[in-house]
Amino acid sequence: MLKYLNQAEAIKVDQILFNEYKFSVDQLMELAGLSCAHAVAKCFPSPCQGNDDKAGKLRVLVCCGPGNNGGDGLVCARHLALMGYEPTIYYPKPTAKPLYENLHHQCELMEISTISQCPSVEEAAHSYHLIVDALFGFSFKPPVRSDFLSVMELMQQTKIPIASIDIPSGWDVEKGKLNDCELEPKLLISLTAPKLCAKHFKGQYHYLGGRFVPPALQRQYELNLPNYPGTELCVKLS
Amino acid sequence: MLKYLNQAEAIKVDQILFNEYKFSVDQLMELAGLSCAHAVAKCFPSPCQGNDDKAGKLRVLVCCGPGNNGGDGLVCARHLALMGYEPTIYYPKPTAKPLYENLHHQCELMEISTISQCPSVEEAAHSYHLIVDALFGFSFKPPVRSDFLSVMELMQQTKIPIASIDIPSGWDVEKGKLNDCELEPKLLISLTAPKLCAKHFKGQYHYLGGRFVPPALQRQYELNLPNYPGTELCVKLS
Repeated sequence: MLKYLNQAEAIKVDQILFNEYKFSVDQLMELAGLSCAHAVAKCFPSPCQGNDDKAGKLRVLVCCGPGNNGGDGLVCARHLALMGYEPTIYYPKPTAKPLYENLHHQCELMEISTISQCPSVEEAAHSYHLIVDALFGFSFKPPVRSDFLSVMELMQQTKIPIASIDIPSGWDVEKGKLNDCELEPKLLISLTAPKLCAKHFKGQYHYLGGRFVPPALQRQYELNLPNYPGTELCVKLS
Repeated sequence: MLKYLNQAEAIKVDQILFNEYKFSVDQLMELAGLSCAHAVAKCFPSPCQGNDDKAGKLRVLVCCGPGNNGGDGLVCARHLALMGYEPTIYYPKPTAKPLYENLHHQCELMEISTISQCPSVEEAAHSYHLIVDALFGFSFKPPVRSDFLSVMELMQQTKIPIASIDIPSGWDVEKGKLNDCELEPKLLISLTAPKLCAKHFKGQYHYLGGRFVPPALQRQYELNLPNYPGTELCVKLS
């Protein structure tokens, strides 16, 4: 049976990938963010594939937090742009580390705009078809810091579909929603292996991404991951 | 019309990706090697998808050179293993840089064996279904160094199909085969954009991989890359 990780296990698996397997953050973030873009493309296909028809593109607001989840979001935004989407980044607290600065720089040079003001519910409804929630990941502990309160409120109140990367932001990593006003994503992309909170996910699409977990690590933690079909980078869980 | 790059242009495009766009080698090597694994999977599907049936796996000898082409090969080997292939690495001159050491370490911990002796034509025919040629890339200038002479000879003489990453090793990057004994791959995976030598490719499958070229760079060099369909990481050129 597919294993759902608690917070300590998720942190441990991550550490093993970096310390024992010696993956770099660059590598795994690239693969994780790419698999998120693929899951988005499966669930919310853009009518436009090439770069020609700007009007036909699906407009996506990618909300990036300060940690690895936000980095996954920056990578996801770049790959969405390459696949015929029009992403816009909201990144209220840019991380002052070279990797994050470079990931954001890549987006800027790829003509992906970054907005500095969180849009209102009405503005977002008018401007975007989808929100990618890349705010907080499996290391999240409440409370939400003040920089992120307005975007959390937007995501809780909007009627635009939300795609959450790994953890619906604000949810307890193990227990799920802590109260009824928490956001409810339409798509959840679990990375590496689903976390316990995913058991409480009631949205339409649940995908697994991050096709990089070595077989020995899968066995060690009895992850029982499903087989990814063919060359797919993500696999539908429900 | 699709642009074929000369050696100086290929080097320049690479420099722009790293220096102006600030991509890390880790990032682009991961995407390049992954796209090579996908192209291999399209042309030489493995009968086995999961990890269960070792006997049913397609056995692939991945021959890695000392530079970025060899790094792409190490990444390709790892993703092939995750997709139900049984890769074996031949890496006669390991590069003493952390990235390369880590890429090789990842393969070792993923139970991918590395052989230290180049197999004979007969041994290779008996042991492998396919050879991935990741020896030399677009920076190659002859002559071939002594460490690589036996594997070059193997690839020139074998009847096993060969998949070459970016440049069929030994070919002139612009003029193609310099003499009749040069290897003739069945699959060529051009990365970023095809190099001039690809015009002389007469094998069965020509794919383009490396879906990361920013639109502005595509315009600047008038690359006229084909649209990658959907979420595909490689696209068939011929």
